[in-house]
Amino acid sequence: MLSFESDYIEGAHEKILARLFETNFERLSGYGSDKYCESAKEKIRRACESEEAEIFFLAGGTQTNQIVISSVLHRYEGVIAASTGHVSVHEAGAIEATGHKVLELPQNDGKIEADILEKYLAAFYADANHDHMVFPGMVYISHPTEYGTLYSAEELKALSRICREYKIPLYMDGARLAYALESPKTDLTLPMIAELCDIFYIGGTKVGALCGEALVFTKKNMPKHFLTTVKQHGALLAKGRLLGIQFDTLFTDGLYSEIGRHAVSLAMRIKKAFTDRGYPLFIDSYTNQQFVILENSEMERLSRSVKFSFWENYDENHTVVRFAASFATEESDVEKLERLLDE
Amino acid sequence: MLSFESDYIEGAHEKILARLFETNFERLSGYGSDKYCESAKEKIRRACESEEAEIFFLAGGTQTNQIVISSVLHRYEGVIAASTGHVSVHEAGAIEATGHKVLELPQNDGKIEADILEKYLAAFYADANHDHMVFPGMVYISHPTEYGTLYSAEELKALSRICREYKIPLYMDGARLAYALESPKTDLTLPMIAELCDIFYIGGTKVGALCGEALVFTKKNMPKHFLTTVKQHGALLAKGRLLGIQFDTLFTDGLYSEIGRHAVSLAMRIKKAFTDRGYPLFIDSYTNQQFVILENSEMERLSRSVKFSFWENYDENHTVVRFAASFATEESDVEKLERLLDE
Amino acid sequence: MLSFESDYIEGAHEKILARLFETNFERLSGYGSDKYCESAKEKIRRACESEEAEIFFLAGGTQTNQIVISSVLHRYEGVIAASTGHVSVHEAGAIEATGHKVLELPQNDGKIEADILEKYLAAFYADANHDHMVFPGMVYISHPTEYGTLYSAEELKALSRICREYKIPLYMDGARLAYALESPKTDLTLPMIAELCDIFYIGGTKVGALCGEALVFTKKNMPKHFLTTVKQHGALLAKGRLLGIQFDTLFTDGLYSEIGRHAVSLAMRIKKAFTDRGYPLFIDSYTNQQFVILENSEMERLSRSVKFSFWENYDENHTVVRFAASFATEESDVEKLERLLDE
Amino acid sequence: MLSFESDYIEGAHEKILARLFETNFERLSGYGSDKYCESAKEKIRRACESEEAEIFFLAGGTQTNQIVISSVLHRYEGVIAASTGHVSVHEAGAIEATGHKVLELPQNDGKIEADILEKYLAAFYADANHDHMVFPGMVYISHPTEYGTLYSAEELKALSRICREYKIPLYMDGARLAYALESPKTDLTLPMIAELCDIFYIGGTKVGALCGEALVFTKKNMPKHFLTTVKQHGALLAKGRLLGIQFDTLFTDGLYSEIGRHAVSLAMRIKKAFTDRGYPLFIDSYTNQQFVILENSEMERLSRSVKFSFWENYDENHTVVRFAASFATEESDVEKLERLLDE
Repeated sequence: MLSFESDYIEGAHEKILARLFETNFERLSGYGSDKYCESAKEKIRRACESEEAEIFFLAGGTQTNQIVISSVLHRYEGVIAASTGHVSVHEAGAIEATGHKVLELPQNDGKIEADILEKYLAAFYADANHDHMVFPGMVYISHPTEYGTLYSAEELKALSRICREYKIPLYMDGARLAYALESPKTDLTLPMIAELCDIFYIGGTKVGALCGEALVFTKKNMPKHFLTTVKQHGALLAKGRLLGIQFDTLFTDGLYSEIGRHAVSLAMRIKKAFTDRGYPLFIDSYTNQQFVILENSEMERLSRSVKFSFWENYDENHTVVRFAASFATEESDVEKLERLLDE
Repeated sequence: MLSFESDYIEGAHEKILARLFETNFERLSGYGSDKYCESAKEKIRRACESEEAEIFFLAGGTQTNQIVISSVLHRYEGVIAASTGHVSVHEAGAIEATGHKVLELPQNDGKIEADILEKYLAAFYADANHDHMVFPGMVYISHPTEYGTLYSAEELKALSRICREYKIPLYMDGARLAYALESPKTDLTLPMIAELCDIFYIGGTKVGALCGEALVFTKKNMPKHFLTTVKQHGALLAKGRLLGIQFDTLFTDGLYSEIGRHAVSLAMRIKKAFTDRGYPLFIDSYTNQQFVILENSEMERLSRSVKFSFWENYDENHTVVRFAASFATEESDVEKLERLLDE
Repeated sequence: MLSFESDYIEGAHEKILARLFETNFERLSGYGSDKYCESAKEKIRRACESEEAEIFFLAGGTQTNQIVISSVLHRYEGVIAASTGHVSVHEAGAIEATGHKVLELPQNDGKIEADILEKYLAAFYADANHDHMVFPGMVYISHPTEYGTLYSAEELKALSRICREYKIPLYMDGARLAYALESPKTDLTLPMIAELCDIFYIGGTKVGALCGEALVFTKKNMPKHFLTTVKQHGALLAKGRLLGIQFDTLFTDGLYSEIGRHAVSLAMRIKKAFTDRGYPLFIDSYTNQQFVILENSEMERLSRSVKFSFWENYDENHTVVRFAASFATEESDVEKLERLLDE
Repeated sequence: MLSFESDYIEGAHEKILARLFETNFERLSGYGSDKYCESAKEKIRRACESEEAEIFFLAGGTQTNQIVISSVLHRYEGVIAASTGHVSVHEAGAIEATGHKVLELPQNDGKIEADILEKYLAAFYADANHDHMVFPGMVYISHPTEYGTLYSAEELKALSRICREYKIPLYMDGARLAYALESPKTDLTLPMIAELCDIFYIGGTKVGALCGEALVFTKKNMPKHFLTTVKQHGALLAKGRLLGIQFDTLFTDGLYSEIGRHAVSLAMRIKKAFTDRGYPLFIDSYTNQQFVILENSEMERLSRSVKFSFWENYDENHTVVRFAASFATEESDVEKLERLLDE
């Protein structure tokens, strides 16, 4: 069945599977100490234009967020996030489970505005009772955001400047980073992100890997004994090669960018398919996720022939739904969607 | 290089890789809700001869132990384990990180003896101060143990009886369960384990999967909202198919047993290679891990041509080392080892 | 110096000190098992008109909130609170430190409105993704609220009804409960609170005790092994008599009510002192805390002769400040304040 | 009834009560910021002969242990303790509840031997797998120990030297410190303890206070934002004066020492009462707790006229019991005991 349900409905990019096949019987040491992990790290350092970047591979996004946030924060600190941030809403309390509050700020199109952040931090330290409160110890942003929107270079620079002023790290959740980097509307490159953020991760699961995220510490700031911390979280894969080989492949011959470009360009066609036909957008996204407002009976009709995600109720008669493109989405899928819309 | 370093030095059994390849472009729903997960669960239920078994797939062993133990225990309870148990020593404090003490009992060949367990529980409740102490809330055993040894049916029945008497669950870590089930010295079958244990897991990572463990709740005792708990631990894979397809393959046409048999039979040949030549064993294991005592200079000599694991210092001049066989170990590997020993 | 800084600037009510003195050399068993704890519990049960109420004495409010919330919630649950609730803002993350999210609802005069609560709960269960979210597992309210305001009987009944419909406990933080019960504007009695709430605590620290809160479980719902849980939190006093004797005194001959009445009646005089002179109130409180808006230079002037608390900035030129009355505030103190305002 | 059940069966030393009475209506700021806390800290610094000692008052011993250990350790670290240590056995898992393992070492008369500690640390770092294990991050000792025994100056110096070599803090639980300092058999003074330990606490609850322990950081090593951490644990008393006034009194005119001397000298008489009459000791303690082996029928007989504590079963016919002296034990109590033994 035609499906734009998410960017994780297929397996892996075929180059990844091929590489797993080719290397399968090589005998490699465990827990991420193999040569493919090393090679992948080196390639990512090069892509980030940062020789000193420290990299660790993990299996999933919530896991990465949980480990980063809990290992970097002091116990008396919390993490600032947009109220719509993945860590705020959709990780089942993974951050709080490690003892830390998510300090939610109002969001704008899924983003934290520099101005709001700066006022929050100033007010916190101005409050005479702030030592009875949770200290802000990190800023979490997602890029693209949960709404498919993007920070501009200027916006990211402003957040970075504030974080440095208050000496708290800026952490970017890049679960779908490829779709940001390859968006027609971005002016942020991977080296800029590595420069402006203290920590970020390059998402694999939603960009053609079976699983896997590459966590990057950009300022020689990887917490001490980080492998032990990962083990303590139950997140250290015995066959670390599974992650190393996948990221080595993604960062060979520009595959990560290629997947990003492919999905974003099809998502632009999906958007056009809707806007050409007068469907209103919920948000004007330039990444691989498109949020469309459907009249409920129309949603009903479409859902008989194509899969997509429920996002949120818009009003009594309308619903926001999401269409996502992935490495495996084909042009012909979009054409089928267009025909469906025309029916 | 010849290697018996562990049972996770190669990738996956080729049937698993083939299946991942074949199903790669099928569009499946996420988070373990796909048809391959369903099919794998059904096959495991059948192998356990338990219609009511509830199954959940996770990525690794420490992760599984952490999630099971912390979701089943009350906060005032700890888990009883052998002092050599994986949760006691080699999980970097994963259990304590969730707030629970590991109550360590003296071990015998890596096993908890029923008699010692019973005395411990009786003494706890007889102690007038026990409400200032950590309540025993679960018994953790590994099978095979960390020393490759096995519980007999009688031993497991005794532990199970005591646990039921004290109304605490018996949990078996089956990271290498296939090698127990296919050992020439076992009288325990999978259905017996499902009957005697309240919770156990069927290890995949060390039995030919890229990653993955099948957690089984045998008494309709899966904790409420378990998926949310798994998500909170950062352990819910978006592409749950990765685990479902692997276990579906492992439980098709007896592959899980076949891998177990293959590795154990080669391990028996490894053992014989050593004992025939007068090398003393540290423990007489009938599973896929063999523990041999090597004179240090001999260890040095061998290590130039074959990889194995350091286990522990035996005395000033001797060291305990481990040789492990896996799905990918070949007869020719053992023959090479034999020639090396003869040199 | 004249001070209305808070209701915990003096020691204890003199009857409490006298009782500590009289009983000092009695040899009593520890950890709350003494006869004064028993007697205090019996008197509180009588005051609540609830024979089945289970009571536990703790030393402070944040401690009580932390222990109640973390011992009652399942790990996948959070506690709903007003965004201005003490647990949301002023407990330094004590709830999150135990692994649980505070699910903050918009507040109205410090209160949770039944309508908003009901919509929140309905929306949660209607959300297709709610198993990736924190489950609402308890409702926390404070009475009086952090702004000195009160729930009416009707309002509390509505919250109670919703909680029972969704099968989650309603928990009332009564740090200053005496000032609610003795307010001229309340229609809620202690027995009604015991009926409508599943758990609440009767504050002592801010009502004339040196320290101490009486935690009440009203529905035979005290968590199993609660003493062990309290010990695990480091909250079990060896000399439990310290709490028992204080509460026994507070609930003898109506002392708790008397202290409440005394402080509220003086607070009403403080309010009148301000409103008679045209000072605007920030909130019209009928309990022992009064929130007044002062012009900044006036605040400056007053602060030279009387202590009060900074509450929050109102606008560039005005500040909200708090004046609190306690068991030890005297009529003459209020008269001095009146004279200061007239200067 | 005659009772030697523990050192916390009475209220407070009368000088403490008197001081609480005298200062009761002084209006003081909250949360430990009052002048009595300041004065008490200054007196303790003087008693420790350490100008740079940082001091914080807490309510109880388990609370103090929990807060110190969890705020000083990194998340990947555990605390080393004797297997009989209070944190190992009798705190209901308070340390684990904060996420940290108690690494139990074998004990000798309740003490950790330097030799055993040194071997443990050396073996840990020699273990090739130590990054899958809990790192030793602190050493916990109690002085007197749970068995009333004492570290000699030489023993404490040895532990201190090892801790400094491995760069981990040495923490002393001084719940009954006065009885160590005033023991006829000690060669350790308070300034020596302040020099050799990195952190320790001076127990009040069991030395004549209603409640309270004075936590001392001796090397300018109080964790940052410690007050916030204490608040997060629910351990910050609003009326901090309660602790300040008590410790100010205990450290005025040598009261703390006087209480120690008094109880120890009576305990020596208790010991003599038993040994003179041929009763065997379980341990030869020179502090305020005496551990005697009683034949069970004799235990039965005595328990009709005097209270004491059950400690542990010795053999089928004998039991170890504890007799403790406190500030309020009188010579006449010991004489009554002697008469009872003679009956």
